[in-house]
Amino acid sequence: MGEFDLIERFFKRPARQADVGIGDDCAIWAPRPGHQLAISADMLVEGRHFLSTVDPFRLGHKALAVNLSDLAACGATPRVFLLSLALPRADETWLAGFSQGLFQLADAHGCELIGGDTTQGPLNIAITVMGDAPSSQAVLRSGAQSGDDLYVSGHLGDARLALEAFRGHISLPQPVFDAARQRMETPSPRVALGQSLRGIATAMADISDGLLGDLGHILKASHVGAEIHLTSTATLMAASAHWNCPADLATTCVLTGGDDYELVFTAASAARASVLAASAASGTRVTRIGRITHTPGLVLRDEHGLAVEHHLRSFDHFA
Amino acid sequence: MGEFDLIERFFKRPARQADVGIGDDCAIWAPRPGHQLAISADMLVEGRHFLSTVDPFRLGHKALAVNLSDLAACGATPRVFLLSLALPRADETWLAGFSQGLFQLADAHGCELIGGDTTQGPLNIAITVMGDAPSSQAVLRSGAQSGDDLYVSGHLGDARLALEAFRGHISLPQPVFDAARQRMETPSPRVALGQSLRGIATAMADISDGLLGDLGHILKASHVGAEIHLTSTATLMAASAHWNCPADLATTCVLTGGDDYELVFTAASAARASVLAASAASGTRVTRIGRITHTPGLVLRDEHGLAVEHHLRSFDHFA
Repeated sequence: MGEFDLIERFFKRPARQADVGIGDDCAIWAPRPGHQLAISADMLVEGRHFLSTVDPFRLGHKALAVNLSDLAACGATPRVFLLSLALPRADETWLAGFSQGLFQLADAHGCELIGGDTTQGPLNIAITVMGDAPSSQAVLRSGAQSGDDLYVSGHLGDARLALEAFRGHISLPQPVFDAARQRMETPSPRVALGQSLRGIATAMADISDGLLGDLGHILKASHVGAEIHLTSTATLMAASAHWNCPADLATTCVLTGGDDYELVFTAASAARASVLAASAASGTRVTRIGRITHTPGLVLRDEHGLAVEHHLRSFDHFA
Repeated sequence: MGEFDLIERFFKRPARQADVGIGDDCAIWAPRPGHQLAISADMLVEGRHFLSTVDPFRLGHKALAVNLSDLAACGATPRVFLLSLALPRADETWLAGFSQGLFQLADAHGCELIGGDTTQGPLNIAITVMGDAPSSQAVLRSGAQSGDDLYVSGHLGDARLALEAFRGHISLPQPVFDAARQRMETPSPRVALGQSLRGIATAMADISDGLLGDLGHILKASHVGAEIHLTSTATLMAASAHWNCPADLATTCVLTGGDDYELVFTAASAARASVLAASAASGTRVTRIGRITHTPGLVLRDEHGLAVEHHLRSFDHFA
């Protein structure tokens, strides 16, 4: 199977949104008038972002999911994406599974594959995704205000819990492991919630490197600080409902775990009803975990409101 | 040096075209009204597309050049690009050279880096580039008509000549090798010519896998054939002017060499003056090498007009 057969067989589908899709030097696409584009790129490397044993269907899902999560964080509507794929060899079984996982998620979000590249090399998946939002309505990291409420979507820490089990650091009951593994391998980008929060959230980011690190980006861009109430974060890990996780491990997973692909966002306290409505409209749970402060820095508070010492760090690829 | 320091130090510059550049979950960019986007992605893998010994400045140039060449082939004006980079380690000397080579070419074309990703992994450079053209004016592969003239830009075959020398298959005089190596390592994307040919070229593609293969894409998309006059292609290799290249090698390099990043295009014979004007306006040489035929297939003709047998194939990553 040659390069062009591979593209034809596994990746080329009729163009719907694009004027010209796969098969020319460029894709040709006319964005909607009156809208801004939101554009993001993420690269997944074997051994770094996923294990070589991962099911290719789930990998196809995840490769696009992590990119859609960036669009969600800006409140953008997914439109089109490009896939650049380096493969050790043209393995048809692998390609069938990967492309099915990729397209199932793409179709669920109406996001069309319009181009890319395939080459031989160590397994590497680079996706660029493009979405849109009405002009000036994209939600940035820089809009958080002192006094705003601080929220996260969904569940945090389960992906890290699965990773700890994969590494043999902990042992989990099988159903807990299975559920955590699913969160790690097939995250759900919060695209509907992100769009529902346009005009409500003052700042938003997706949680890929861990809550504290990604919240840190909001604080830095907005020139504010935050306090987090640990009583509200204690129940964020889905596994906690079914399994008595050691408290230290749960805190580490929830606050610094990474690979969550949830949203962290801020909104004025006057907008609490709107946040709940956005949550209901998108069918996505949100939890208020603290508030934005004028004083820079990040303070964790225990059940008595006392500040807790912490030395937690988020993931850094070159640290 | 951590991931965010690396981005800050080598890749982040003030946004000019983008509303939001590097530093949020997505870049935010509003394309020009009345224009279509042309979008392309190319991935370069060490050992496959470049040697590990290549100068990082030249590699930065080439990584963007091969993407700009795709925009040129559509007649699009470069606007913005995203860079996803997997690096074995954060090597400051390498990053300084790479980013300088990248930005020197980007600045020459007014193309702005608006986002991307950095991660640890085997060296891999994935770029997505976006340009624009007035609506319906992008040049596609599918518009060639029987009777059209067939042209190529610049020089062909020198990159392949350099590769043959690197592989030890041939020995070249030092000045010939140096010039050929420069063509291989720092190709010049024909962006100005591509734009000048909007409304003149009926079909166009860039030559990355070899003239015959890339012309083949035009023939397939346009449902036509072509004949090439070998007398006109014999002088396309720049090295031929200074060195007595064996005829077989020259033919192989010019017709199937690859890594040329020149343009192959078609235009009505009534448009010859316009093609020459576009060539002059863009300062880029063009050579008429044959014509488009109603009969499918590709015929090579010698100096007597006789068809020449050929079994030449272009590059395929998985063949």
